[in-house]
Amino acid sequence: MRLHHVEILASDAVIEAGKEYRTIMDEIADAIARIVWPPGSKEFTILPIRKENGVKPIKERFVLRLEEFGWEAERRIDLGVTEKRPGPIDVVKRLADGRYFAVEWETGNISSSHRALNKMVIGLQRGVLMGGVLVLPIRRLYRYLTDRVGNYEELEPYFNVWRTVPVSGVLAVIAVDYDATSDDVPKIEKGTDGRALR
Amino acid sequence: MRLHHVEILASDAVIEAGKEYRTIMDEIADAIARIVWPPGSKEFTILPIRKENGVKPIKERFVLRLEEFGWEAERRIDLGVTEKRPGPIDVVKRLADGRYFAVEWETGNISSSHRALNKMVIGLQRGVLMGGVLVLPIRRLYRYLTDRVGNYEELEPYFNVWRTVPVSGVLAVIAVDYDATSDDVPKIEKGTDGRALR
Repeated sequence: MRLHHVEILASDAVIEAGKEYRTIMDEIADAIARIVWPPGSKEFTILPIRKENGVKPIKERFVLRLEEFGWEAERRIDLGVTEKRPGPIDVVKRLADGRYFAVEWETGNISSSHRALNKMVIGLQRGVLMGGVLVLPIRRLYRYLTDRVGNYEELEPYFNVWRTVPVSGVLAVIAVDYDATSDDVPKIEKGTDGRALR
Repeated sequence: MRLHHVEILASDAVIEAGKEYRTIMDEIADAIARIVWPPGSKEFTILPIRKENGVKPIKERFVLRLEEFGWEAERRIDLGVTEKRPGPIDVVKRLADGRYFAVEWETGNISSSHRALNKMVIGLQRGVLMGGVLVLPIRRLYRYLTDRVGNYEELEPYFNVWRTVPVSGVLAVIAVDYDATSDDVPKIEKGTDGRALR
């Protein structure tokens, strides 16, 4: 899959200069690049039919790769946003100083992207997170995905909220796209195991 | 209906000292107080069955009262959050200086409350809004409402996002509650006309 671009909403020069951060971003980029379709190919080629391809198998593939790098999936970390049991974060990496780097791969609608970024803001403000990244498809890819998933262009007009809110750490959105389209590939069924996308 | 409390997330001493703002808050409080159930009673008494009462008729009643004060319902104002036709805001009042005061009565899930407040932030930052208010039920009331509507307590842990983001103007959340419960009142059907709630 193609990493379209990384949009840094909140930056932190000290963190960004460090080796730990560079490793994290390299691992995320690698996990995106290794999402392929159909199985066994070298690129992510999608069947270009509107709303036909499942999103969760793509996310699963991404998470599986990060787990190979030592990240933890579905970890429930108390970011300070609930009195009850905290909701799981898609994938986190525990850092040397005890803080976490969180990544959410959007599978819900655009409203849930707002909540995901607001949650990361609280985690950064409370010092639980060192960084947070939300991954979502650009509109060109989103058209072919099911589940009314949100897209990058829809969220972009709101970026100033997260650019201006004071946080300590890094907050970013990563936009992803397909490598190619083809009528000769199968659609990604919702129930596909993420392991198939490699 | 009972106005449980007003939580000011972003304040502006000049606006809050003005007559226009006091009128706005009085009108909102009046519109909440005048939501009654069953029809013709003096209070808002709800049938205490989980997830059984419609939310939209309640919102409609609120909006109808503000319209009597000269507010405009479903006005599409360009707050800067879309390249396409702006989505409608539940109810707005146009102010003497050309800016607007926006009120959204939450009828969606908690994620949509995040988007609603983020949208108001952008409107305030761009100088299109002078103020924005989101109304949502406290948990005690929410339990009896349909549509997986969000509640105040769920949103509260995120308030620091909107308390710390820089805006010019007023941003607030208003929590509402029932006055009483009774097994002798009918449920509020989803299709009820808002005019019935008076």
